[in-house]
Amino acid sequence: MERTLTTEVKAHVGERVRVIGWLHSLRQLGGVNFLVIRDGWGLVQAVAEQEAEIAPLIEGKLSVESVIAVEGLVVSEAQAPGGAELHNLHVEVIIPIVEPPPLPLNKRKITASIGTLLDQAVVMNRHPVRRAILRMNAGMFASFRSTLTARGFTEIQTPKIVEAATESGANVFKLDYFGRPAYLAQSPQFYKQIMVGVFERVFEVGPVFRAEPHDTTRHINEYVSLDLEMGFIENHFTIMAVLRDVIANILSTFSTQYSSELELLRVRMPVVPAQIPHIHFADAQELILKLHGVDVRGEPDLSPQDERWLGEWAQQEFESDFLYVTGYPMRKRPFYTHPEPGRPEYSNSFDLLFRGTELVTGGQRLHRYEDYVAALEKAHLPLEPFASYLEAFKYGMPPHGGVAIGSERLLMQLIGAPNVRLTATFPRDMNRLAP
Amino acid sequence: MERTLTTEVKAHVGERVRVIGWLHSLRQLGGVNFLVIRDGWGLVQAVAEQEAEIAPLIEGKLSVESVIAVEGLVVSEAQAPGGAELHNLHVEVIIPIVEPPPLPLNKRKITASIGTLLDQAVVMNRHPVRRAILRMNAGMFASFRSTLTARGFTEIQTPKIVEAATESGANVFKLDYFGRPAYLAQSPQFYKQIMVGVFERVFEVGPVFRAEPHDTTRHINEYVSLDLEMGFIENHFTIMAVLRDVIANILSTFSTQYSSELELLRVRMPVVPAQIPHIHFADAQELILKLHGVDVRGEPDLSPQDERWLGEWAQQEFESDFLYVTGYPMRKRPFYTHPEPGRPEYSNSFDLLFRGTELVTGGQRLHRYEDYVAALEKAHLPLEPFASYLEAFKYGMPPHGGVAIGSERLLMQLIGAPNVRLTATFPRDMNRLAP
Repeated sequence: MERTLTTEVKAHVGERVRVIGWLHSLRQLGGVNFLVIRDGWGLVQAVAEQEAEIAPLIEGKLSVESVIAVEGLVVSEAQAPGGAELHNLHVEVIIPIVEPPPLPLNKRKITASIGTLLDQAVVMNRHPVRRAILRMNAGMFASFRSTLTARGFTEIQTPKIVEAATESGANVFKLDYFGRPAYLAQSPQFYKQIMVGVFERVFEVGPVFRAEPHDTTRHINEYVSLDLEMGFIENHFTIMAVLRDVIANILSTFSTQYSSELELLRVRMPVVPAQIPHIHFADAQELILKLHGVDVRGEPDLSPQDERWLGEWAQQEFESDFLYVTGYPMRKRPFYTHPEPGRPEYSNSFDLLFRGTELVTGGQRLHRYEDYVAALEKAHLPLEPFASYLEAFKYGMPPHGGVAIGSERLLMQLIGAPNVRLTATFPRDMNRLAP
Repeated sequence: MERTLTTEVKAHVGERVRVIGWLHSLRQLGGVNFLVIRDGWGLVQAVAEQEAEIAPLIEGKLSVESVIAVEGLVVSEAQAPGGAELHNLHVEVIIPIVEPPPLPLNKRKITASIGTLLDQAVVMNRHPVRRAILRMNAGMFASFRSTLTARGFTEIQTPKIVEAATESGANVFKLDYFGRPAYLAQSPQFYKQIMVGVFERVFEVGPVFRAEPHDTTRHINEYVSLDLEMGFIENHFTIMAVLRDVIANILSTFSTQYSSELELLRVRMPVVPAQIPHIHFADAQELILKLHGVDVRGEPDLSPQDERWLGEWAQQEFESDFLYVTGYPMRKRPFYTHPEPGRPEYSNSFDLLFRGTELVTGGQRLHRYEDYVAALEKAHLPLEPFASYLEAFKYGMPPHGGVAIGSERLLMQLIGAPNVRLTATFPRDMNRLAP
């Protein structure tokens, strides 16, 4: 008999179907045996009124996670997951398992610590709650790509092994490249800018590596970055409009295609306004003084408290979970940042705040060769390690800008996960290199 | 005036439009000035009968690659690229460039050596021929993903920094991970198998790293791997059917969405038969003896000459550019390969040959825990470094298999490029770490 996916069982009420997957749970209630079978997409319940129907499981003393095939009659049952269940079973064992996993996969609540959970990620990634989160990663990648492809962006894949630790001297992993020192790319920043000279609009979904010795709930040392870069922009507001659509489409992808995941995770998706409100950094500092009596003017950056206050203000003033803060001081931004015309101490950059916490950073970049030379000199950086990057500007680059989105952190914030490690499939941190 | 993309100029015959991009070429013929403007998507010609129309270019002695905006009247012109050109020009300089690039971007033929070309990749990636190739990479990635997404596969992103150089001890890059040794993943093999236990069907598009000291036209040391892995298969033939669709869809994506690139590259796409013919390794060796009088029986692998002969045979016998060779001897395949039932010296693996050269390798994997323990023992490998990988099998894994496709090499073969470095955006080889 052809296989039926668990997610399609409901469409076959009154027919016999064959589902295959893992024995997710098996319990007896009043002499009746309730099985749950998990396949790659969902769960389905099967009910054996006679123990004989599940004899292969009983006789083999089989554990959950045994790989099995179950044939049965589909019966509509509002109480069952998916609204239908199987009766009159015929069970076949494909791979018998006798020892259950160290942590239960069939309890909704995972009581283990995050560390224990991640130690067991090989099996715990099968847990429906964890799987829902990991599957949403795939939806986020796909939505990011389709939003940008529809706007004429071309996908690129840039090298991860680089010659020089140029972008910021510290915080890079060093490796041995056929006897020469080399480094893992901490972002595709330089390459994506270079490729604006080729395709004008480019994006990349790929790993980046940060050797930052931070042990917090928001840091991992290898993550998947959603990068975009775009030429012939007016200024950073062009990028902010694209980013608004990127975030809005990710959320609508979740709402439309991941509703069962959102339900399982008990997440209500925020709404992105058609126009995300924005405030200049200098005005934000004035606002904080006015509303909270705290004078942060002259500070080069916003504190977490400042961001929370601004988030509250955006909520009260615009009923928006999202707020752009623009014009961050140049001295806190990387050397390639474009200054604000007329106010060169400020920059054409922005942070997107979500409920009072930074979600994404981006901005306009310098595009004139001579501006790069001046910026590197001002930053006391030598020109030579940047030679090939500078070639792009030497031979004509349009005004351009972009953003980099840490995908695990974005998902963490959107679903309200307490730790970024929970949205990574196999996270890497200072103390975790396996599994 | 709103911008018009070069690719859309033709739709505006009789109107004035504004194109922006790079000055791709500028030449005088009989007192008339012919400009070609290149934007991120294509080229358009502009004709200035009066020098005054292009005064800003002449007066500034500007070079190609200057970033400019050109307004003009769209006139239908069959000879011009795209079938239309601009007349009565108004030119505005956005970024003036006075020094032309070291290699010309506006000559069809690139006469530089591959080494010189790649040294100049930052600018040479703008060359229309090179750009056509790089853009086809994006089409390949997108087609791969859409073929698999439509078949219920879930995208994964697996870690690139790993604890142990387990897959094959040699040929890995070593790095310093917060004072501990770590390695760059040479493939997502173990992780994608583990994730079959979660989603059943998974794919990944991402970088892999091989420290192989090979300096050939077919080797680079960092490449983009198209990986898929699938559970509940019958055997390797299930995978071969999926791979057939993957390749067929990539080719049809090229034919339908990349026709101008194919034309520029003068490539005629091969046709994938509805069923790719297949021959068992042992039968292939018998066939070679029969057809060519060369006895290669007992050899553990096919030589390049053997593959060429088989390619010719597939062409003559089936009019097919593609041929599956199945059942390669176990001793030449990795330890996780599933043996052929009844003939355990052969394996449930395959190579896909394209015009007599290996294109893709894949197969069925072992799925029983005890089989892994035995295989590792037989290969004289310790169990401990494989501990977390083995967890997946300890707690139930279905029959499964997959393939790994080197994307740069696939594109090289499909378009007939002479060197894999030509299909990589910024290739990495033993001697090349930049740009």
